[in-house]
Amino acid sequence: YENKSDQGVSWTVVSPIVFTYRVIQCKDLLDPRNDTLLWGHIEDEELKGTTSNSKPVKRFIVIDKTVHELYGSKVSQYFDAKGVIYKILPLPTTEESKNMELVTKILEEVHQFGIDRRSEPIIALGGGVCLDVVGLAASLYRRRTPYIRVPTTLLSYIDASVGAKTGVNFGGGKNKLGSYVPPVATFLDSSFFQTLPLRQISNGLAEMLKMALMKHRGLFELLEVNGRKMLHAKLQPSETCGGSEQEDGAAASMRIAIETMLEELAPNLWEDDLDRLVDFGHIISPELEMRVLPALLHGEAVSIDMSFMVYVAHQKGLLTTQEKSRIIQCMLGLELPVWHQECSLVLVQKSFRERLRHSAGSLRMPLPTGLGRA
Amino acid sequence: YENKSDQGVSWTVVSPIVFTYRVIQCKDLLDPRNDTLLWGHIEDEELKGTTSNSKPVKRFIVIDKTVHELYGSKVSQYFDAKGVIYKILPLPTTEESKNMELVTKILEEVHQFGIDRRSEPIIALGGGVCLDVVGLAASLYRRRTPYIRVPTTLLSYIDASVGAKTGVNFGGGKNKLGSYVPPVATFLDSSFFQTLPLRQISNGLAEMLKMALMKHRGLFELLEVNGRKMLHAKLQPSETCGGSEQEDGAAASMRIAIETMLEELAPNLWEDDLDRLVDFGHIISPELEMRVLPALLHGEAVSIDMSFMVYVAHQKGLLTTQEKSRIIQCMLGLELPVWHQECSLVLVQKSFRERLRHSAGSLRMPLPTGLGRA
Ligand SMILES: NC(=O)c1ccc[n+]([C@@H]2O[C@H](COP(=O)([O-])OP(=O)(O)OC[C@H]3O[C@@H](n4cnc5c(N)ncnc54)[C@H](O)[C@@H]3O)[C@@H](O)[C@H]2O)c1
Ligand SMILES: NC(=O)c1ccc[n+]([C@@H]2O[C@H](COP(=O)([O-])OP(=O)(O)OC[C@H]3O[C@@H](n4cnc5c(N)ncnc54)[C@H](O)[C@@H]3O)[C@@H](O)[C@H]2O)c1
Ligand SMILES: [Zn+2]
Ligand SMILES: [Zn+2]
Repeated sequence: YENKSDQGVSWTVVSPIVFTYRVIQCKDLLDPRNDTLLWGHIEDEELKGTTSNSKPVKRFIVIDKTVHELYGSKVSQYFDAKGVIYKILPLPTTEESKNMELVTKILEEVHQFGIDRRSEPIIALGGGVCLDVVGLAASLYRRRTPYIRVPTTLLSYIDASVGAKTGVNFGGGKNKLGSYVPPVATFLDSSFFQTLPLRQISNGLAEMLKMALMKHRGLFELLEVNGRKMLHAKLQPSETCGGSEQEDGAAASMRIAIETMLEELAPNLWEDDLDRLVDFGHIISPELEMRVLPALLHGEAVSIDMSFMVYVAHQKGLLTTQEKSRIIQCMLGLELPVWHQECSLVLVQKSFRERLRHSAGSLRMPLPTGLGRA
Repeated sequence: YENKSDQGVSWTVVSPIVFTYRVIQCKDLLDPRNDTLLWGHIEDEELKGTTSNSKPVKRFIVIDKTVHELYGSKVSQYFDAKGVIYKILPLPTTEESKNMELVTKILEEVHQFGIDRRSEPIIALGGGVCLDVVGLAASLYRRRTPYIRVPTTLLSYIDASVGAKTGVNFGGGKNKLGSYVPPVATFLDSSFFQTLPLRQISNGLAEMLKMALMKHRGLFELLEVNGRKMLHAKLQPSETCGGSEQEDGAAASMRIAIETMLEELAPNLWEDDLDRLVDFGHIISPELEMRVLPALLHGEAVSIDMSFMVYVAHQKGLLTTQEKSRIIQCMLGLELPVWHQECSLVLVQKSFRERLRHSAGSLRMPLPTGLGRA
């Protein structure tokens, strides 16, 4: 829109960008008979052919160091079998090393390897740290290079993998630098959880419980009744319905967690809307998590934050005593912490001040108003 | 969109983001009686009031070192007069220092100063390098902090300031890292050009000529006839129409340059469409510019690239001999180079290969097919 005045001309530019990406659950992702890892990001069957015929296919893969020790040879075998020219970069993607230096390291290696910025997505295989760091590197390279997320932890499976956020820690602050650029695709294979320590499963269940408390009573009841069993089975398909088509509790809870997460994230990809239910458990926890690093995992800090807020909601008359204790019992059942000594009043107040500074003058604190309602 | 199969569930996410920003021409931007620099990015008059009443206003300003020497005291006076809490960071924003370290430096200073990520835009005052580097820093900080562009060179006035691109050089490549995040606003004040060396004016005229050759015969004729005069007057309003309302040649040429640029950039903010007229002059020049750094300015490299392409177009029968020499004469009139010894066949071929690698298999080389047509 052009506007003329005696000062000169002014223009208002309104430009929409449409992001499209796919989140795909599948089995045996690393089986060479499965095409998903290589071509699952392309919807059009014909295009897959064209691309693969015209020139050798290249892929750059960044993988968490621990995941590499466990699955590295399967990943190599996969790309060998597919005749792909590839480079695997194993990195220690931990919360402590989640910084710009790691991003730069990836950028240097990608630049040296050389990829087609349009058709050769960078693949990230690992937990949320790996996915966040690779996402940021990819979003910077040539102003945007496609990337693929393959979460190997429960937490990143239901959370980091469905949204657009990338990030690294900076200046003592969690995820202070980053971008909102979604992957071209996310491939979900829950069999990776088999090698996760139980504590990491609990960690992921915290984010699942968040969605349950905010949006889905059914999911809460699933976690309340079957949570401990699912935790110890590491969310693998239960024996009884092994080959059958019927969805078991673990599959249902992951599906509902992703559905509710997508409902919240997709219409607000750039977080322009500040009233976000997904922020539940994320008011005090960023401060707490960074303060005691590495004592608490992300989901553990989230759980402590949620339990604090459940008490707040109870005090405010939003939750009954019975609802409050059912929630706390559920957390304990999932083997999640509900308190930490560093979660002092001073820290809570500091978190609130930080939040106020960045939420356009209002605290915008999501609170449960019942089970599965907020 | 949800889709169930026996492998599991898959989701396709389609999420539109709308970018809105303002490009505002004005006079006396640094005059405290002018509110633009402080509030011009906000459209709603009432909001300006609210924000300024509730708490002290803060602004973080990054300014090119040379621009700071020339205009630094006026900038301080402006913010002093407005009662703003501010920090001015002068930086040597040159092509050689246009890198991630400069971005990190800005981020550290911003983080220490502390700004409200919603309402306190970072202001960049300088040439294209300054605007690009600050844009990248702002787009990374808290995943997106608003920023304002105040171009002080002709080149950045008509080019860097209207689009969404940010960037730094990396691994020997020009603008290899960056993002597509537009500023909240760009404020254009051509009086800054008064202190520019003539060579910097020619430099900007190259990008103006690019738009003329691709899209606007009238602009070409303006440059052909008045170019040299406009250059030596540094595009300042001509004496004769000093106080009058009538648009002079300089004003008209800048307006047309921006209009045509916006027509091309706004619908393709993330450069998803690869067939871009604005790429004219930018096929060989990135390679050439980086190779001979700092011998050629950006616009000079662009001019050499354009003159090469004009010969190509002539060879292909797209331009008559007369059109070709009118264009070359116009370049010479603008005191732009039309050749450089490093622009060898090897370099041209290397540029084409690079381009091919990143343009989905086709060269997509914009060429003039007449004066103001492509
Ligand atoms: N982008 C987003 O939207 C988003 C959402 C939620 C969390 N996050 C980020 O994700 C991070 C937390 O993610 P996380 O919990 O996955 O942590 P993580 O990436 O640190 O992984 C946890 C640990 O598990 C190991 N591991 C990963 N997969 C394994 C496997 N299959 N078997 C055995 N060990 C394995 C890793 O080596 C690591 O030691 C935080 O930095 C958080 O900010 C981002
Ligand atoms: N983002 C985009 O869309 C876009 C578009 C075009 C160019 N660019 C980038 O812009 C850069 C070139 O911009 P540039 O030509 O403005 O270069 P520049 O930023 O290096 O500035 C040129 C020189 O002029 C000096 N200067 C600036 N304003 C002055 C003034 N008013 N008086 C006196 N001296 C002044 C600077 O100190 C510098 O030495 C390149 O890096 C290019 O990649 C970006
Ligand atoms: Zn979280
Ligand atoms: Zn240019």
